[in-house]
Amino acid sequence: MPLVRIDIRRNPDPSYARKLGNVVYEALRTTFGVPERDNFQILNEHDGDHFVYDPSYLGIARTDGLVYIQLTVSEGRSVEQKKALYKAIAEGLNVEAGVRLEDVFINLVEVKPENWSFGNGVAQYVK
Amino acid sequence: MPLVRIDIRRNPDPSYARKLGNVVYEALRTTFGVPERDNFQILNEHDGDHFVYDPSYLGIARTDGLVYIQLTVSEGRSVEQKKALYKAIAEGLNVEAGVRLEDVFINLVEVKPENWSFGNGVAQYVK
Amino acid sequence: MPLVRIDIRRNPDPSYARKLGNVVYEALRTTFGVPERDNFQILNEHDGDHFVYDPSYLGIARTDGLVYIQLTVSEGRSVEQKKALYKAIAEGLNVEAGVRLEDVFINLVEVKPENWSFGNGVAQYVK
Repeated sequence: MPLVRIDIRRNPDPSYARKLGNVVYEALRTTFGVPERDNFQILNEHDGDHFVYDPSYLGIARTDGLVYIQLTVSEGRSVEQKKALYKAIAEGLNVEAGVRLEDVFINLVEVKPENWSFGNGVAQYVK
Repeated sequence: MPLVRIDIRRNPDPSYARKLGNVVYEALRTTFGVPERDNFQILNEHDGDHFVYDPSYLGIARTDGLVYIQLTVSEGRSVEQKKALYKAIAEGLNVEAGVRLEDVFINLVEVKPENWSFGNGVAQYVK
Repeated sequence: MPLVRIDIRRNPDPSYARKLGNVVYEALRTTFGVPERDNFQILNEHDGDHFVYDPSYLGIARTDGLVYIQLTVSEGRSVEQKKALYKAIAEGLNVEAGVRLEDVFINLVEVKPENWSFGNGVAQYVK
């Protein structure tokens, strides 16, 4: 169910963005209970003119390695689950892809279960 | 009112994405009662490294022809309307653009009517 | 906290989109009480095939100079604040970047404070 949008500065490795996406998928599996194979992602790379961030907001030192992750998910997760998700994504990106912990920006947009169709024109999550 | 974001794999026909958008607009007209001319869309094409989907989640066989459709709409539609929208989009894309029914992914994000400005710095939907 | 997405037609000036973003940031500061340095933006430019708008919906005459602004923000702003934001953005873009007032399209997506992580895998807005 999550629709994942990842935005980064242009990277010389064309498979880099997908590596980040894999980490996000794994973190969603372990912390949000997302089903296996529920993996849908749109990845974008930008030049510096189009990638804007503050390098110190909240005292966090950010670099061009910043990873924007916007996740549209079904509502219903607890604050504890969200905190666990953020931690799992940041630590996973750090270990698996060398992303600095400070460079992980995450935002969740929550929607109703009925707001998804995964194909065939059907609302699969409506009981 | 809807803001339509469509994301697809790069297509050799530069007008292909717009054709998909036209179908989405027509489906919003007939199922969500969207006013005539209320048509605002951002279309994006991606290479394979940046376009991620699962080819079998929920038993639906997806291909590179997958069409991601994320619609930001004003809240207030019923589950029945949403189901009708999904069906109209999928069937319309199939008939008008040859998209496989399995390859239509739709997500709705709902917002308050006051969350729109269509120009002139005015919140046109506030009474 | 806001995550700003701006989408425009391709502009010959590579710094043009960023100039628009600066105006949006200033308007968020003055009308939404956004903290200094809370500035996170993803900017995109599109060719005409991928940038769709209606040139007269609601009687507003739009041109290719249209600026799509989608802002994900924490919930809690009043209708008056939203109206002030729209006005400040439109007038700022007009004065600072020559954008026609009619060409400013704004949409707000509201989320819970707990739905943000600004780095380090932490939900900074959770008390």
